[in-house]
Amino acid sequence: VESGEAPIGVFDSGIGGLTVLRALRDELPNERFVYLGDTARLPYGTKTAQTVVRYAVQAAQALAHEAVVKCIVVACNTASAVGLSAIRARLAGLPVIGVIEPGAHAACSATRSGHIAVIGTERTVRGGAYQEAILRRRHDARISALAAQLFVALAEEGLNDGPVAESVVRHCLAPLFAPPAALPGNGDAPHSTPDTLVLGCTHFPMLSTAIRAVVGSEVAIVDSAATTAHAVHAALAASQRLASAGAGAVRFLATDGAERFARVGSRFLGSPIDADEVRLIDL
Amino acid sequence: VESGEAPIGVFDSGIGGLTVLRALRDELPNERFVYLGDTARLPYGTKTAQTVVRYAVQAAQALAHEAVVKCIVVACNTASAVGLSAIRARLAGLPVIGVIEPGAHAACSATRSGHIAVIGTERTVRGGAYQEAILRRRHDARISALAAQLFVALAEEGLNDGPVAESVVRHCLAPLFAPPAALPGNGDAPHSTPDTLVLGCTHFPMLSTAIRAVVGSEVAIVDSAATTAHAVHAALAASQRLASAGAGAVRFLATDGAERFARVGSRFLGSPIDADEVRLIDL
Repeated sequence: VESGEAPIGVFDSGIGGLTVLRALRDELPNERFVYLGDTARLPYGTKTAQTVVRYAVQAAQALAHEAVVKCIVVACNTASAVGLSAIRARLAGLPVIGVIEPGAHAACSATRSGHIAVIGTERTVRGGAYQEAILRRRHDARISALAAQLFVALAEEGLNDGPVAESVVRHCLAPLFAPPAALPGNGDAPHSTPDTLVLGCTHFPMLSTAIRAVVGSEVAIVDSAATTAHAVHAALAASQRLASAGAGAVRFLATDGAERFARVGSRFLGSPIDADEVRLIDL
Repeated sequence: VESGEAPIGVFDSGIGGLTVLRALRDELPNERFVYLGDTARLPYGTKTAQTVVRYAVQAAQALAHEAVVKCIVVACNTASAVGLSAIRARLAGLPVIGVIEPGAHAACSATRSGHIAVIGTERTVRGGAYQEAILRRRHDARISALAAQLFVALAEEGLNDGPVAESVVRHCLAPLFAPPAALPGNGDAPHSTPDTLVLGCTHFPMLSTAIRAVVGSEVAIVDSAATTAHAVHAALAASQRLASAGAGAVRFLATDGAERFARVGSRFLGSPIDADEVRLIDL
């Protein structure tokens, strides 16, 4: 077991996980971090579970090889949904924390009606990991899950808010939040809209203003970046391995495209990344 | 040199090239085809030139290994833009046809004013291949190029037309077609909007209705799928290697996700693909 002064390893398929890193730095300002984005093979969200598991295990192993880390945060919902147990098996002894369980926990705390909506990539939603994690905590939950793949592109292109972003968000979320008359095949079910919305993709917090404008003020929005940062904090505190002073320093690793990683990633991280700081590695 | 009865090989980073395959089948109804989509590593459009060249060469070699083809069509603008000469070098003797030159040729035929707009992925636009290919044919052309990465996601999600698609298309194309007052830094240049728009990504023909609604009826829209099909027809005719009767049969190969390839690809091809017909290969 590494000392509390070792950095926290964070990996993602690309830049989305930088919203998790941002939340981790806010939550844990004394920690140091090493972030790996598998930009040569992104996105994971439209690929098969088998391929995602293979890529995620390789990325986690590379991260553990590049730096002596005290834990690994899988800052990608898709990789967490399908690859967490495989990663834990390969990195025995190293704590590995995903984003699904903290998000499910927060959703169950937030909901009053028990009707929870989950949006994510195709792979995350179809795999059913959020659904299982929520039902394990609350057996009577009603879960409406929807792939919102287009939100990834909106966030990457910086089309985060304003009327165009809102029109896309409204269109995509209509099956979850539109009046029942607008939905096909909904004849018999008593209509209720979810009171809680889980942003089950690390890109989606970038669109939170547009999403809030569409769903209204009554819906609780669960951001898995913030909830994961809380979970990491709790885990490190419990094992008495919080750093005493690391001042939030980050090393950036990527598998392709340092320039794009820095340019688009700066928006996701909320602070500038210099392309010269991004070291390319092969997986 | 293979006989005229051998199939035509077509490859793309994923499913976008199916719009080119569709145009090829329309143009050449007697030919047989083998299509490879590198779905495990898509998209190419946001990756570096070095990575795209490596992936494209591997994909073209795998295609030539899987089937005895009489030519290879690189049905991906990004791979054509950066990888064509590398692919030709590795597949010496096999005719290799990309989508850039036919598109540039068609654009130069269509324009009257000489002001041509090119939209494509980040990598295609930044690489400047269309710009070079147009200027080689028309030295005085004025070219406005713009990355429209978001259109890829719109097309894949099936959000092809209607008010939401049009709002995104209008937003993205505003730097090319908006009135000059809406543009920063345009004070001195005499204002003119392009009279020709090149769809420099094989996904974009899926959005042609929305694009037409935004740019109006006066702009010529050059679809590189159709122009590439003409070029392949001309090349095969010139070498007397047109097939006599193959009835448009297609074999599908992909590197990941047969189910998604079939589901989303059917829309791009304009005719149904059965997931059981899609054979997975490793690159």
